[in-house]
Amino acid sequence: MTTLVEYLKNEFSFSLDITEKIASSFKEITLEKGAYFLKEGEYCNKIGFVENGAMLYFMNLDGEEKVCDFGFEKDWVTHIKSMIGGIPTDMNIRALETTKIKWISGEKLEQITKEFPQINQLRVKLSEQYFVQSAERANELANLSAEQRYKKLVAEKPELLTKVPQYYLASYLGIKPQSLSRIRAKK
Amino acid sequence: MTTLVEYLKNEFSFSLDITEKIASSFKEITLEKGAYFLKEGEYCNKIGFVENGAMLYFMNLDGEEKVCDFGFEKDWVTHIKSMIGGIPTDMNIRALETTKIKWISGEKLEQITKEFPQINQLRVKLSEQYFVQSAERANELANLSAEQRYKKLVAEKPELLTKVPQYYLASYLGIKPQSLSRIRAKK
Repeated sequence: MTTLVEYLKNEFSFSLDITEKIASSFKEITLEKGAYFLKEGEYCNKIGFVENGAMLYFMNLDGEEKVCDFGFEKDWVTHIKSMIGGIPTDMNIRALETTKIKWISGEKLEQITKEFPQINQLRVKLSEQYFVQSAERANELANLSAEQRYKKLVAEKPELLTKVPQYYLASYLGIKPQSLSRIRAKK
Repeated sequence: MTTLVEYLKNEFSFSLDITEKIASSFKEITLEKGAYFLKEGEYCNKIGFVENGAMLYFMNLDGEEKVCDFGFEKDWVTHIKSMIGGIPTDMNIRALETTKIKWISGEKLEQITKEFPQINQLRVKLSEQYFVQSAERANELANLSAEQRYKKLVAEKPELLTKVPQYYLASYLGIKPQSLSRIRAKK
């Protein structure tokens, strides 16, 4: 478990005073397994910080649910495309297990950013980090074989293997579940 | 052709005065076809704005050059992972044709951001935009068929088809060149 206050202090070296003021602008929600943080069709207007638990991003494609992303402890969850584009989201963000989230609305975030411009550093750093991650994922999907992608995931994010059911992992890796079973059986 | 000054004024509504001060911190370079903006192994410490022309991002994988990204007019080019991580880049960024770029070093960017904190808005907006784009690319690679990916690219970025040789497109789409030929022949 990592509280938002601990995270802001450790990762961004904000003073305790500012950290507590920022954190107090967030609300708390506990989602039970399967509960939604965001539903397809909604206009996303919030950003959440996962204090503990695990979230899954799903997309409906041709009637099938595909896993697009995960959010674990210390991750931020939102659908930026819907937020910055002002368009309905095409994602579902659901709890994979009981998950505690601190969240803030878009308007409130703008408001406290005016009060504490340091938050812009945080936004730049985070969006650059998430950009790097998704660009890597795209390059791996375009250029690595299914087996190479699986091995890289095992090496870099071993916690995924214990937390996430295999059919969700297969979807995230762009691999058919039966192919993933074959790859895992090889080892 | 879109100059950096025009871009900053139009996209970010900065005043002409501030726009010109920011733009004057950039240097200009013209790259001939094939010339490098960034080479594998270098520490990336610059960000460029493409005023006109076209840039390609390559990665060497198992001795093969794979295309990871493009940078066209009004795009920013850099390797953020190398820049924020302080690690050598694994990319080559080369000109696909004669390309005019305005660029700024990391240090200079930090310095003018202190002077003009408005630049943080620009950085937030850009990194969020690029994050959305690469997340979409990853989701398409994981979940759409080769033919669906090609059709989406044709619909959304028709300029790629005229500017970029087919074998580079195939690499970007994660499709074998001969499969892309088959898909194109179908139409």
